Amino acid sequence: MAVTDPEARLRELGYELPDAPPPVGAYVPVVRAGGLVVTSGQLPFRAGKLIAEGRVGAELDVAAAGEAARVCVLNALAQLKQLLGTLDRVKRVVRLEGYVHSADGFYQQPAVLNPASELLTEVFGERGKHTRVALGISVMPLNAPVQIALWVEAE
Amino acid sequence: MAVTDPEARLRELGYELPDAPPPVGAYVPVVRAGGLVVTSGQLPFRAGKLIAEGRVGAELDVAAAGEAARVCVLNALAQLKQLLGTLDRVKRVVRLEGYVHSADGFYQQPAVLNPASELLTEVFGERGKHTRVALGISVMPLNAPVQIALWVEAE
Amino acid sequence: MAVTDPEARLRELGYELPDAPPPVGAYVPVVRAGGLVVTSGQLPFRAGKLIAEGRVGAELDVAAAGEAARVCVLNALAQLKQLLGTLDRVKRVVRLEGYVHSADGFYQQPAVLNPASELLTEVFGERGKHTRVALGISVMPLNAPVQIALWVEAE
Repeated sequence: MAVTDPEARLRELGYELPDAPPPVGAYVPVVRAGGLVVTSGQLPFRAGKLIAEGRVGAELDVAAAGEAARVCVLNALAQLKQLLGTLDRVKRVVRLEGYVHSADGFYQQPAVLNPASELLTEVFGERGKHTRVALGISVMPLNAPVQIALWVEAE
Repeated sequence: MAVTDPEARLRELGYELPDAPPPVGAYVPVVRAGGLVVTSGQLPFRAGKLIAEGRVGAELDVAAAGEAARVCVLNALAQLKQLLGTLDRVKRVVRLEGYVHSADGFYQQPAVLNPASELLTEVFGERGKHTRVALGISVMPLNAPVQIALWVEAE
Repeated sequence: MAVTDPEARLRELGYELPDAPPPVGAYVPVVRAGGLVVTSGQLPFRAGKLIAEGRVGAELDVAAAGEAARVCVLNALAQLKQLLGTLDRVKRVVRLEGYVHSADGFYQQPAVLNPASELLTEVFGERGKHTRVALGISVMPLNAPVQIALWVEAE
């Protein structure tokens, strides 16, 4: 039904879907409830290590945090693929929750999250257009710079 | 089916539904997934400008922040109307997420959000009775004092 | 259908389901929308009083905050039972939102929430395996150390 397969599109964009990272506690990474699938909050792990640490506006800048946000989304997509078998069963990305570990006085959380949001629309097209909540967080688990959770509607 | 039309009730209460504000990033303001409709986090924009800035308990007080919370809800209702055509298709307000930009030591987030919650029950009656999460946030996008997202069940 | 009744399991574990705490504002504690049931954010009230106050990493330690997290979950289960009649109608715990009132530089939010997550899997077995979002929050309503909201799928 999809015009373009989202996984093919990811590869075209030069991204590789990572192995789905294990949870960092007594929970699971993704659950389906009826037509909705929700992921746990994803941190910017790559090959088992955070790609960055600290607060945006202090230890790292908007560009580095935006890259971390993209890695969070790739991890969330890996979780969805693990549950659904293929990302082509995503009918709609419903919501992105973006939590940005922020220094006092840093108000550009939307700029940090835009690369994550744009990646979703590049990969899924119209199906990737999602709602968003963007918050600045004073302290983040493991001192990660960003945490992202996704809600999608799935076949 | 509704005892009172919510939009008529809004007018009775002296409110006007604003134009739905555009998103402040690479996302959309509202998405439907099955019976659920969710809005993006709404900031207290009126005619394209934030009606207040800063942290409650420092740059603004509970009354001013409560007014901002009401404006966030009006913007969320405008988003819902844009998607649904009429607010009368809201069967139930399911959840209000209230994020309050708070100074250290300010613990009255519920008081800030009550005007927003009360507006929903005044407009929708029994259908407006919702769950709520209330959080104090250290830094908010654009230095806004409040951000509110709504989840509703819709026809 | 369940192998073990969750309420019997709670008693085996030595827990008693409390009376469902009233909301601390103009909202309701739990709402059903189709197959989903969501609770409001629950604070660690026991018999009408918070069992602890303050920030983890400052006024209280991980163990005390973990106990508070468990009390939040018991309150959330009491809300679900009030709506559903019996916890045995919970088909799946979908999501735990864990907000931890945290001192600057405290990054162990997952450790605070693990006792809450583990309680859910002890009580519900496979049905209790949930996704999680864990955030450090700078200021919490009423100076509570933890706030937890649950989303479940229900019969």
